[in-house]
Amino acid sequence: MLDAEQIKRFAAEFDPQPFHLSEEGATGTLFNSLAASGWHTAALTMRMLVESVPLADGLIGTDLQLSWPKPTRPGMTLRVFSEIVGIVPSRSKPHMAMVTMRNETRDQDGEVVQNFTVKMPVFNRPTA
Amino acid sequence: MLDAEQIKRFAAEFDPQPFHLSEEGATGTLFNSLAASGWHTAALTMRMLVESVPLADGLIGTDLQLSWPKPTRPGMTLRVFSEIVGIVPSRSKPHMAMVTMRNETRDQDGEVVQNFTVKMPVFNRPTA
Repeated sequence: MLDAEQIKRFAAEFDPQPFHLSEEGATGTLFNSLAASGWHTAALTMRMLVESVPLADGLIGTDLQLSWPKPTRPGMTLRVFSEIVGIVPSRSKPHMAMVTMRNETRDQDGEVVQNFTVKMPVFNRPTA
Repeated sequence: MLDAEQIKRFAAEFDPQPFHLSEEGATGTLFNSLAASGWHTAALTMRMLVESVPLADGLIGTDLQLSWPKPTRPGMTLRVFSEIVGIVPSRSKPHMAMVTMRNETRDQDGEVVQNFTVKMPVFNRPTA
């Protein structure tokens, strides 16, 4: 579960805007109460992906699209749901393909806090 | 300047893949030597934007696109170059517009490590 201290610590280092730094700072802003930086949501999502998506050579994104349809808040428990939506073999590199993965990061009620689509180069297993 | 310790610390928390965690772990991978997580590059870019882009209500991204044309490495000094490429007034909310900002994060030699385009809601100053 994400707590307020984690949200404030990430914000202090990377996204020091009032609505990410303190409850008081968030009052009267678009967020109204403390919200995590979208980059924090993205980084937490990456952690979950690294721990669960079995690509031997690693998860290396090249192009990606992100949106944050609702804020990530203290007390939320996040999960990520991923789907491979495309595999395009490379024309020039026969051992390589571009894989497109679509990911939804959802809170404990199933509401989406992040949509994230990424293209990743993936390599064949070496032939024995 | 970004150092190896910062790269490893971010990776240990959010993107624990061998090529982001240690020099040895990066050997023989697509990166060959230690490279920062792209999310670290993105977070460092956000820090620079927060410190330099003067939007009164804050930098709140909704939809965004990212690419990492080359890895961020230890020893690099990053700078961000930003351009407002579109301002579209909202039809339903007359005090609001959607601003599109295009950002390039470059290393000390001017080479681009991140392209980042973001749409942000921006509000009129209150009329007196």
